[in-house]
Amino acid sequence: MHDIKISCDFDILEENRRLAKENRKILDDHGVYCIEILGSIGSGKTTLIETICRNLRDTRTKVIVGDVVSEYDKQRIAKLSIEAIGINTGKECHLDAHLIHHALEEVDLEDVDLLLIENVGNLICPADFDLGAHERFIVVSVTEGRDVIRKHPHIFMKVNAGIINKVDLAGYFGINADSLVEDILSLNRDCKVFKISLKTGEGVRGLLRHIAQSIEIASF
Amino acid sequence: MHDIKISCDFDILEENRRLAKENRKILDDHGVYCIEILGSIGSGKTTLIETICRNLRDTRTKVIVGDVVSEYDKQRIAKLSIEAIGINTGKECHLDAHLIHHALEEVDLEDVDLLLIENVGNLICPADFDLGAHERFIVVSVTEGRDVIRKHPHIFMKVNAGIINKVDLAGYFGINADSLVEDILSLNRDCKVFKISLKTGEGVRGLLRHIAQSIEIASF
Repeated sequence: MHDIKISCDFDILEENRRLAKENRKILDDHGVYCIEILGSIGSGKTTLIETICRNLRDTRTKVIVGDVVSEYDKQRIAKLSIEAIGINTGKECHLDAHLIHHALEEVDLEDVDLLLIENVGNLICPADFDLGAHERFIVVSVTEGRDVIRKHPHIFMKVNAGIINKVDLAGYFGINADSLVEDILSLNRDCKVFKISLKTGEGVRGLLRHIAQSIEIASF
Repeated sequence: MHDIKISCDFDILEENRRLAKENRKILDDHGVYCIEILGSIGSGKTTLIETICRNLRDTRTKVIVGDVVSEYDKQRIAKLSIEAIGINTGKECHLDAHLIHHALEEVDLEDVDLLLIENVGNLICPADFDLGAHERFIVVSVTEGRDVIRKHPHIFMKVNAGIINKVDLAGYFGINADSLVEDILSLNRDCKVFKISLKTGEGVRGLLRHIAQSIEIASF
């Protein structure tokens, strides 16, 4: 009696895949390596981007920052003298390839080695929307609880690297960071997993090395 | 050229409002006070529900737990010998009045004083979907960063109470919990705000008193 029916003019996800492929071609044509960063609110996405920008000084980096309505994250990045393009999704809870397609028109890709895209803080909706990045990272904080990965299997199956952040607080929250590693690997055996603390610096070097190597390999 | 068009058979939000009103009438007819609990992943929604169930022992409580695919939260509640009805939203990132309408059919409302509804962990999509509860609480943790409220104004404008959790960690994260209180009040002057730590118990008594009073007033 009260079923809700939606009819779509065409397949949104299929169209998204087509545009993501176009985006990837644009990036490849310009020799730009692109990493999308996913994760919940407060997991540490923006702090990770700040850390990458501060440490990979010889890498010419630009950032696309997705947020619902505000520009707080964009402003944080801009403080590092890194060009940051903000996308406000309004009430939408994820970026899509179409939004990135337009953002790419605003970026001068000629002098970029690494493009970072920070998605909206959400572990559900962004999963299905390939943006055209070469790698997808997901940041998950030990403060999000022991079940967080098993509760959101879909998105963890669609990433290339899982970054377990705030491991310095694992003891306080009674969380075993290694069991979070196992949770990711049980869903996605090929996923690289990094245990880090962006606050104390623990484990960060290994992650930065991975990113630097990926950029180098892609530039051959 | 690549605009995405969706045509809907009718207004989803209007239909949701109609069903929410129906749900509220069903609850009122049975003398059940209903609180919806919103908040991001790991903010402490399930722990808050556990705390309410453990402490308001004379209140006959049941719980509806929304999750994307899993039953971890439902199982946590059930361990307290509290009846918990799980709703899996699949890939949907919020509950709606239609899902709650069906869940209410599964609950024997005759012997219930308080019905708690835990929404999916998300600060964006659930905002517009009234479920029919009498009060909406939002749980926000200091670990989510200093900008989290200003970054998600929409949902904070639609709640009756804001619960700032994990205040015991505010110092470690360099967060001033009072500025989070101000952020909520600047968006929603009538919002009640509670600063608590579900881990240490700080501030919890005031929140429980508020809930007990609301149930009592509603039962007159």
